[in-house]
Amino acid sequence: MSPRRSIAEARRTRETIERHATDLATTIGLEGLSIGRLALDLGMSKAGVIGHFGTKEALQLAVIETAVETFVERVWAPAAAAAPGRSRLEALCDAWLDYLASDELQGGCFLTAAACEFDGRPGPVREAIATAVRAWLQVLAAEAATAIANGEIAGASPEQVAFELNALTQAANQAQQLLDDPTAFDRARRAMHRLLGEQLAASPRGAAPPRRRD
Amino acid sequence: MSPRRSIAEARRTRETIERHATDLATTIGLEGLSIGRLALDLGMSKAGVIGHFGTKEALQLAVIETAVETFVERVWAPAAAAAPGRSRLEALCDAWLDYLASDELQGGCFLTAAACEFDGRPGPVREAIATAVRAWLQVLAAEAATAIANGEIAGASPEQVAFELNALTQAANQAQQLLDDPTAFDRARRAMHRLLGEQLAASPRGAAPPRRRD
Repeated sequence: MSPRRSIAEARRTRETIERHATDLATTIGLEGLSIGRLALDLGMSKAGVIGHFGTKEALQLAVIETAVETFVERVWAPAAAAAPGRSRLEALCDAWLDYLASDELQGGCFLTAAACEFDGRPGPVREAIATAVRAWLQVLAAEAATAIANGEIAGASPEQVAFELNALTQAANQAQQLLDDPTAFDRARRAMHRLLGEQLAASPRGAAPPRRRD
Repeated sequence: MSPRRSIAEARRTRETIERHATDLATTIGLEGLSIGRLALDLGMSKAGVIGHFGTKEALQLAVIETAVETFVERVWAPAAAAAPGRSRLEALCDAWLDYLASDELQGGCFLTAAACEFDGRPGPVREAIATAVRAWLQVLAAEAATAIANGEIAGASPEQVAFELNALTQAANQAQQLLDDPTAFDRARRAMHRLLGEQLAASPRGAAPPRRRD
């Protein structure tokens, strides 16, 4: 086997492990991931699995990175072409809820589950999860800031908008995963569009100053 | 020892175990609870701990019941005297956020953590958690229905209001627990009071029909 082929195969194997581990983690938790279970599921030796990561913590960090990359592909990419500001925020919210409701995420939102699991356990895994959540809230807040600057959402602080949009997806995720409630994503979508839209409805054609939202 | 005294002592011991197990569970998870750890922490024998519950699952169910009782004491009781409808909903939201922000809940919201941990694991523990969350959403929806009937919140469906209030506390809990964000509870409180109040602000003195919220 040529060195180049060998490196490419190692990368493919590593990606296969990461993808399966990410799926598993939403159901059994990041801490529940075991090298033995992954090896069994993938028909590999334990040494073959651990050789790609070194430690369980390195595997957990790789799983978080994979989940974030997939999130960016599924949620940011479809909305990237929308006009910055309210249009893109709406596109992001739609893609976000579509992704959470998809068959791909049988175990629900990876980051919400990981956050619940690790928020009380200091260390690099908790930090990686917090960094990912903060980065996403900043993406939402940046779009909200543009929407405010464009006069599309008046009076709201960008961070408050990001906080509330994030809240609605967390509740939809809980309703779907714990309560088997099929209306959850519709409820969240309705509230998101109201949050992003009602300001303008309240002051048609700029006739009156928009009310403060927060 | 008289039989009566013996029964009372057994009850006190059981309550001590339940309270400690509930505190522990918000940090290490319901599944992470071990008879050995509880025995060590409380200076008891393992047999002494397990004798009160029989199985680990029975211990987990007892912990959920304890957490629900405490929640009712801390959140429902302070709001019970408020007038049904919007006043009581506001009082419930304030007591809820105060409880989540209190030093008592170092590990954050017990039910949110338990829901994340067990939503993918069918069985009596998942059912007990789902029953508790559903019951709380029904309490909120019933108050919202009264507020709508009183004309205090117009146009919103009671279930949508309950969903959104629950969403805001989940996000505040995540922000506090994962992101160490001290503004989280204020953000949630602001959004809750806006959600419950802006309808009336939008139609002063009944001059115009309130806008639909959902």
